[in-house]
Amino acid sequence: MKIAVVNGPNMNLTGVRETGFYGKVTWKQIEERLRKLAEEWQIELLCFQSNHEGEIVDFIQEHLSSLDGIVLNPAGLSKTGYSILDAMSSVGIPYIEVHMSNIFDRGGWHAQSIFFENAAGLVVGLKGYSYDLGLQGMKQYLDTALAPN
Amino acid sequence: MKIAVVNGPNMNLTGVRETGFYGKVTWKQIEERLRKLAEEWQIELLCFQSNHEGEIVDFIQEHLSSLDGIVLNPAGLSKTGYSILDAMSSVGIPYIEVHMSNIFDRGGWHAQSIFFENAAGLVVGLKGYSYDLGLQGMKQYLDTALAPN
Amino acid sequence: MKIAVVNGPNMNLTGVRETGFYGKVTWKQIEERLRKLAEEWQIELLCFQSNHEGEIVDFIQEHLSSLDGIVLNPAGLSKTGYSILDAMSSVGIPYIEVHMSNIFDRGGWHAQSIFFENAAGLVVGLKGYSYDLGLQGMKQYLDTALAPN
Amino acid sequence: MKIAVVNGPNMNLTGVRETGFYGKVTWKQIEERLRKLAEEWQIELLCFQSNHEGEIVDFIQEHLSSLDGIVLNPAGLSKTGYSILDAMSSVGIPYIEVHMSNIFDRGGWHAQSIFFENAAGLVVGLKGYSYDLGLQGMKQYLDTALAPN
Amino acid sequence: MKIAVVNGPNMNLTGVRETGFYGKVTWKQIEERLRKLAEEWQIELLCFQSNHEGEIVDFIQEHLSSLDGIVLNPAGLSKTGYSILDAMSSVGIPYIEVHMSNIFDRGGWHAQSIFFENAAGLVVGLKGYSYDLGLQGMKQYLDTALAPN
Amino acid sequence: MKIAVVNGPNMNLTGVRETGFYGKVTWKQIEERLRKLAEEWQIELLCFQSNHEGEIVDFIQEHLSSLDGIVLNPAGLSKTGYSILDAMSSVGIPYIEVHMSNIFDRGGWHAQSIFFENAAGLVVGLKGYSYDLGLQGMKQYLDTALAPN
Amino acid sequence: MKIAVVNGPNMNLTGVRETGFYGKVTWKQIEERLRKLAEEWQIELLCFQSNHEGEIVDFIQEHLSSLDGIVLNPAGLSKTGYSILDAMSSVGIPYIEVHMSNIFDRGGWHAQSIFFENAAGLVVGLKGYSYDLGLQGMKQYLDTALAPN
Amino acid sequence: MKIAVVNGPNMNLTGVRETGFYGKVTWKQIEERLRKLAEEWQIELLCFQSNHEGEIVDFIQEHLSSLDGIVLNPAGLSKTGYSILDAMSSVGIPYIEVHMSNIFDRGGWHAQSIFFENAAGLVVGLKGYSYDLGLQGMKQYLDTALAPN
Amino acid sequence: MKIAVVNGPNMNLTGVRETGFYGKVTWKQIEERLRKLAEEWQIELLCFQSNHEGEIVDFIQEHLSSLDGIVLNPAGLSKTGYSILDAMSSVGIPYIEVHMSNIFDRGGWHAQSIFFENAAGLVVGLKGYSYDLGLQGMKQYLDTALAPN
Amino acid sequence: MKIAVVNGPNMNLTGVRETGFYGKVTWKQIEERLRKLAEEWQIELLCFQSNHEGEIVDFIQEHLSSLDGIVLNPAGLSKTGYSILDAMSSVGIPYIEVHMSNIFDRGGWHAQSIFFENAAGLVVGLKGYSYDLGLQGMKQYLDTALAPN
Amino acid sequence: MKIAVVNGPNMNLTGVRETGFYGKVTWKQIEERLRKLAEEWQIELLCFQSNHEGEIVDFIQEHLSSLDGIVLNPAGLSKTGYSILDAMSSVGIPYIEVHMSNIFDRGGWHAQSIFFENAAGLVVGLKGYSYDLGLQGMKQYLDTALAPN
Amino acid sequence: MKIAVVNGPNMNLTGVRETGFYGKVTWKQIEERLRKLAEEWQIELLCFQSNHEGEIVDFIQEHLSSLDGIVLNPAGLSKTGYSILDAMSSVGIPYIEVHMSNIFDRGGWHAQSIFFENAAGLVVGLKGYSYDLGLQGMKQYLDTALAPN
Repeated sequence: MKIAVVNGPNMNLTGVRETGFYGKVTWKQIEERLRKLAEEWQIELLCFQSNHEGEIVDFIQEHLSSLDGIVLNPAGLSKTGYSILDAMSSVGIPYIEVHMSNIFDRGGWHAQSIFFENAAGLVVGLKGYSYDLGLQGMKQYLDTALAPN
Repeated sequence: MKIAVVNGPNMNLTGVRETGFYGKVTWKQIEERLRKLAEEWQIELLCFQSNHEGEIVDFIQEHLSSLDGIVLNPAGLSKTGYSILDAMSSVGIPYIEVHMSNIFDRGGWHAQSIFFENAAGLVVGLKGYSYDLGLQGMKQYLDTALAPN
Repeated sequence: MKIAVVNGPNMNLTGVRETGFYGKVTWKQIEERLRKLAEEWQIELLCFQSNHEGEIVDFIQEHLSSLDGIVLNPAGLSKTGYSILDAMSSVGIPYIEVHMSNIFDRGGWHAQSIFFENAAGLVVGLKGYSYDLGLQGMKQYLDTALAPN
Repeated sequence: MKIAVVNGPNMNLTGVRETGFYGKVTWKQIEERLRKLAEEWQIELLCFQSNHEGEIVDFIQEHLSSLDGIVLNPAGLSKTGYSILDAMSSVGIPYIEVHMSNIFDRGGWHAQSIFFENAAGLVVGLKGYSYDLGLQGMKQYLDTALAPN
Repeated sequence: MKIAVVNGPNMNLTGVRETGFYGKVTWKQIEERLRKLAEEWQIELLCFQSNHEGEIVDFIQEHLSSLDGIVLNPAGLSKTGYSILDAMSSVGIPYIEVHMSNIFDRGGWHAQSIFFENAAGLVVGLKGYSYDLGLQGMKQYLDTALAPN
Repeated sequence: MKIAVVNGPNMNLTGVRETGFYGKVTWKQIEERLRKLAEEWQIELLCFQSNHEGEIVDFIQEHLSSLDGIVLNPAGLSKTGYSILDAMSSVGIPYIEVHMSNIFDRGGWHAQSIFFENAAGLVVGLKGYSYDLGLQGMKQYLDTALAPN
Repeated sequence: MKIAVVNGPNMNLTGVRETGFYGKVTWKQIEERLRKLAEEWQIELLCFQSNHEGEIVDFIQEHLSSLDGIVLNPAGLSKTGYSILDAMSSVGIPYIEVHMSNIFDRGGWHAQSIFFENAAGLVVGLKGYSYDLGLQGMKQYLDTALAPN
Repeated sequence: MKIAVVNGPNMNLTGVRETGFYGKVTWKQIEERLRKLAEEWQIELLCFQSNHEGEIVDFIQEHLSSLDGIVLNPAGLSKTGYSILDAMSSVGIPYIEVHMSNIFDRGGWHAQSIFFENAAGLVVGLKGYSYDLGLQGMKQYLDTALAPN
Repeated sequence: MKIAVVNGPNMNLTGVRETGFYGKVTWKQIEERLRKLAEEWQIELLCFQSNHEGEIVDFIQEHLSSLDGIVLNPAGLSKTGYSILDAMSSVGIPYIEVHMSNIFDRGGWHAQSIFFENAAGLVVGLKGYSYDLGLQGMKQYLDTALAPN
Repeated sequence: MKIAVVNGPNMNLTGVRETGFYGKVTWKQIEERLRKLAEEWQIELLCFQSNHEGEIVDFIQEHLSSLDGIVLNPAGLSKTGYSILDAMSSVGIPYIEVHMSNIFDRGGWHAQSIFFENAAGLVVGLKGYSYDLGLQGMKQYLDTALAPN
Repeated sequence: MKIAVVNGPNMNLTGVRETGFYGKVTWKQIEERLRKLAEEWQIELLCFQSNHEGEIVDFIQEHLSSLDGIVLNPAGLSKTGYSILDAMSSVGIPYIEVHMSNIFDRGGWHAQSIFFENAAGLVVGLKGYSYDLGLQGMKQYLDTALAPN
Repeated sequence: MKIAVVNGPNMNLTGVRETGFYGKVTWKQIEERLRKLAEEWQIELLCFQSNHEGEIVDFIQEHLSSLDGIVLNPAGLSKTGYSILDAMSSVGIPYIEVHMSNIFDRGGWHAQSIFFENAAGLVVGLKGYSYDLGLQGMKQYLDTALAPN
């Protein structure tokens, strides 16, 4: 089982950036937890972050045939990243969307995402733990071959 | 740590009802999994379901002073259950909202919930596992006293 | 063939309530006509009214396996009774929605119903006769196994 | 008692046209049933269909003084036939609007009609039987001189 | 003169609940003030609270013939309680709507109420005193038989 | 305690103007009642009316430092009087907004006011008595130094 | 100078139709007044009415090269008669739009017209006299070669 | 018969101001034509212009009892002059609204007016002649006591 | 292979009408080009134009069983011609919609068409060549039996 | 070069009013800075403030022929001052709009202005310095005869 | 004549990606057809695809002075690629927009494009042939120097 | 004091691109003026332009700790550059947004920017001088440590 955790723009600043919303745990610390879980569950884990929408599309295209699922935090591309959505749809890779803050509480454009509709699942608001639960959800989804809805 | 899993109308039919959306696992089976997790994590678990909005409000009021958190599937009351929202807000009990199907994919009124905004977290679309992840998220939230966002 | 006529809040006041809109024929008189028709057509008829949304959900759940169809006047729950809609959808009981007054002419919230979309049929505006035609329509629907649309 | 059944564009194709929505019963067969009912109820029945909005207006103007009521399926003119609505309003002929399919379920422009608001009644979704119930409703309306709402 | 003060869901928690918005005066204290005013003005006063919409409808139906007016705080049912509105409209009981907090300042769903339109009067934002003024307004309304607007 | 009752355009015509909405009691008669109440409650009362938005702004600026509160009927300036709102906000004078008719029932532009949101309270629909209750509410507000919400 | 007065559907019923809105003066009487004015002002006057949108388009096409202006009451085609608008625009014939009733006061679809925007002028609400003023306005427009706006 | 022609802000600049829209005829020239017409028709004519909304309200209040009708160009107050509308409504003075340019063609805020709905009539787009036709329309309206719609 | 080119109202004026948008090439010249292409591709070509929506519906009904495809310019019926859409849908004739001008650039109602959604293809903005490309597209569509999407 | 700085209602309170938004620098201090800049740049500077929309219109009309440009803070008239906009448009005086606070950040009606669209420039959010930059921008605009866009 | 065919993100996956919408013909096969047509028509053809919006902007800037026209499929950038639109507008390069699937039929965000409005032409829904027709349309456009609309 | 002037896509074409909107002054000329001002005010000035959103995000992240402020023209990313906004928000770098043309006058998408709300200031419409004023505003903002609003 091969799963990619894909992070959109500025997520590399996690732990530094707007700490009121995102907490002080750094991405490196979150990634360590994820790698431990992946090892425990025998998942091959890819972690990828980019500030360039095009690079995320390139990444997905590159791994199109080998990935079983994606845990995606589209971040600043949540409203505009149609190309990322298209790349995942192209061969139907299931993805779980995660957000660290409660985007619905922050309102306005924070509360919207073009990725909601086709996601296999959604985990929102539990800071760094959103990734842990997202990975676990993706594992369960793939394990039991649950149809996405 | 005392957590209630609160289910709105018709969730007692889980496993029978619209199986295309909700799968064939019954609520009883999900509840068993939750009780096992609760035991493992030393959580006192209350499970409550009602088809009556007023009874859910009564239930929350009754446990107002003892509950640490709620895992809530508002189901058919997702758009109209302001009284439930008010009851939880009255003394600020944190809650994680869960939905079994991807409500955003189903569109229309399915995609709306008045509970999103104030939730400590949101887990959507992973069928019965939405509850497992919701309970786990609530435990992590309370364990680490993370501010909800 | 077993059909339930289900009435939402305040329909027990028919004949007393806003007589300009609903006329002076009482519900008892309407029910008598319906029972006569049911007898003539060899339909087992259940008549149920409640001011409590939850009780209507309970009623439908209780008769889930035996009912062939429902003639429903959601009344004051026309815009908010998602739980009733969910209960009927749970095992796919066909229903015909009836309204005594022309809800479209009264405008505003009167003109909206969340039940339109999935109804097998709709009869609006013919005062007490809306029920007669609704029952007849349900009989024809079930007799001929017409797909709802 | 003189009642006209007026059909808008393409209703002459009933039984041929989009049979998934409208069934395979032809208009001729429906008209026969209506004529039988009219005879039984001593109603003088006019049946009129046209693909031309103007001809429907002409028809209504021609029978303005003799018609007691109209059973109208505006079909493709449901959203645009203001001139037909004006013609019926000119001397206040009551009409019952009928649709064979559940226009609310089909959504979009199908779900809208400028005729809802002023109708004496509305029967939707019961395929050819919508006409039978519409005629019966118009008879009851005229028999008992019920005010339309 | 017989007037009912009807409180929607969670108003029994007044003085405990969201004290930033509602203050620390309890409902019991407010009710005592109201009973004193009623005695002074020779009004027969009924006070009723329920978390169940259906029970409020039942209450109004039960007192339909004897009540002269209602002072209503619909609380969490302000946007959805059409059945309560229908019950009061059924025989035309005048009501004054009261809210303790300035619902317009809180914005969003707080700022909306389906009861505004038909109210004899509205008193908003003066915490517990909203009830005192509401009762006084209802007395003046009934005393002088002012048409509601 | 010094309170101003400020009336917007045309309120000088009260008792003459649209008597169906506003009744036949003249402003002079209302003012007399208010003066009596003010005397009883030892309030220094200023009454001001103008058809000129600018003059109302001038009036508020002139009394900026001495006024404790305002009872305001913005009348025809309810949707456009931002300058009046700004003047009151400039040093934070609390105000209670009053309307004689039920502006929500009259609908359209009548139902909107830019003053709702920041008001200490709102009294609507009780004709001339709206002022009496507004003055009483302002007194209670100032007496008890209740925060507006 | 050659001017056509073009009437949309049902205007032939003027004097019979909805007399509350349109008065009891018949079209024949209005036409007589217009002919007298035309004679006095040496205008060649064409009067045309049809219930068929297509016939109005045909009429305009037929007179495309000879007409100096049109006085148009689109009636029931006010919202849908794009083809008529296109026909007049094809070679830029100026037109004045007239309505007998105050369409803005009647609200809803009555208040909308696709012809407003390109009209040389608009006369609304003065019953039959709308035509007299419309003809006079068109004469003045053509006499002085005023640019349409 | 006494009629006032009331002009809103900047109409005193007619002939100078945005001559592409309003032409080069000055207000003085238009007023002369109107006075000649008034003399011919034995109408007592008042002409009033102000840049101050309050002064227009004062003017109408002052002439409330003697005016039979108003020809009003609200100009820059077309969207905001509720106080002017209220003043005219106070004792029900009929008014005809005139605009020199085709406000619908100019679009945006130009195309909106709060005065449309209650006007006895509307004349738009015929530059200075809009006033002539407006005066004539008001005369006809008063002569024949036509109800406005 | 039998294809009809169907033109809505006023397209007979092509070359005369609004030449800024449509150019000076006449319909006759376009039709000649189309006939040459049809001959070359061995297509039986029908060309039909009408100013009457009803006649277009009649035309389609008449050729229902023999036509393989339609190249349609709905022109002034683009927003209202539901009956034409219904006629084509009745037995599922594929159509390609063409417009001579860029309707999206002209904005407003020009930019909308009820025919977009079900079209096999769309060619916009290339003046007379839109028809050439539309015919070619229809040929390719039929040749290769491409499903429309 | 003659430039007017025109301030809308309540700007005379600058330094006193809502100091969180506008700072504690008084208008007098800002004006002094502006006069120094004007002197340095050889600009004849007029400073005008009024709480009366009509007086601002009068001021602009009075200086219509002599002003080269206006620096305008419409303040509370930002959404309603069409008459001021019309006055400036009447002979095409260029203006730069300034706001002291970031009106977009304050949201709601603060974020809207009818003056944006026709402004030669816009300076927002830099407290008193908005005027300095506005004056400098107007000088540059006039110096270089830049077309506004 | 030099024309570029520019493809947005994921179009390199054509033939692999969502074959239900886009068919199984690969981009390579389409490009071959286009090259053959270009050769036949003596067009210098550039084909460019990128998943990076910025690279597409760079590409257009690089060829700004030599390109005669662009055939553009913006794909996932249809709603967000303002920078691409700006690049083409910078020196006014005409473009024809093509889409392989009927984006209007797919609805939602698929149906919107910021490129419609300024396009010289639009070809939608004919799968790979959309490019052939797009190229042919661009050739005709340039050949005959047709103004874009 | 270190300030970056950041330019979005296509701003490198300034002086070439749409000269009607942006003038013929090139970016190089503007930059020279800015460098002179920076030298005079002892500001360390960075100028950066990219057609790639990701590169702008990278640039801001790289200078996160050293920059005091940004003068930003988001250009074609004004509606979609959430990632740029997030990067600046991450550690709270103040920015002033500048636009060369009056984006409000150009309307549609030109008039919208996601950057308005959080900007320390906004300068719009003064062509190349918008940058000069923007830099000056940023200097004043930093000099006086004015809170942004």
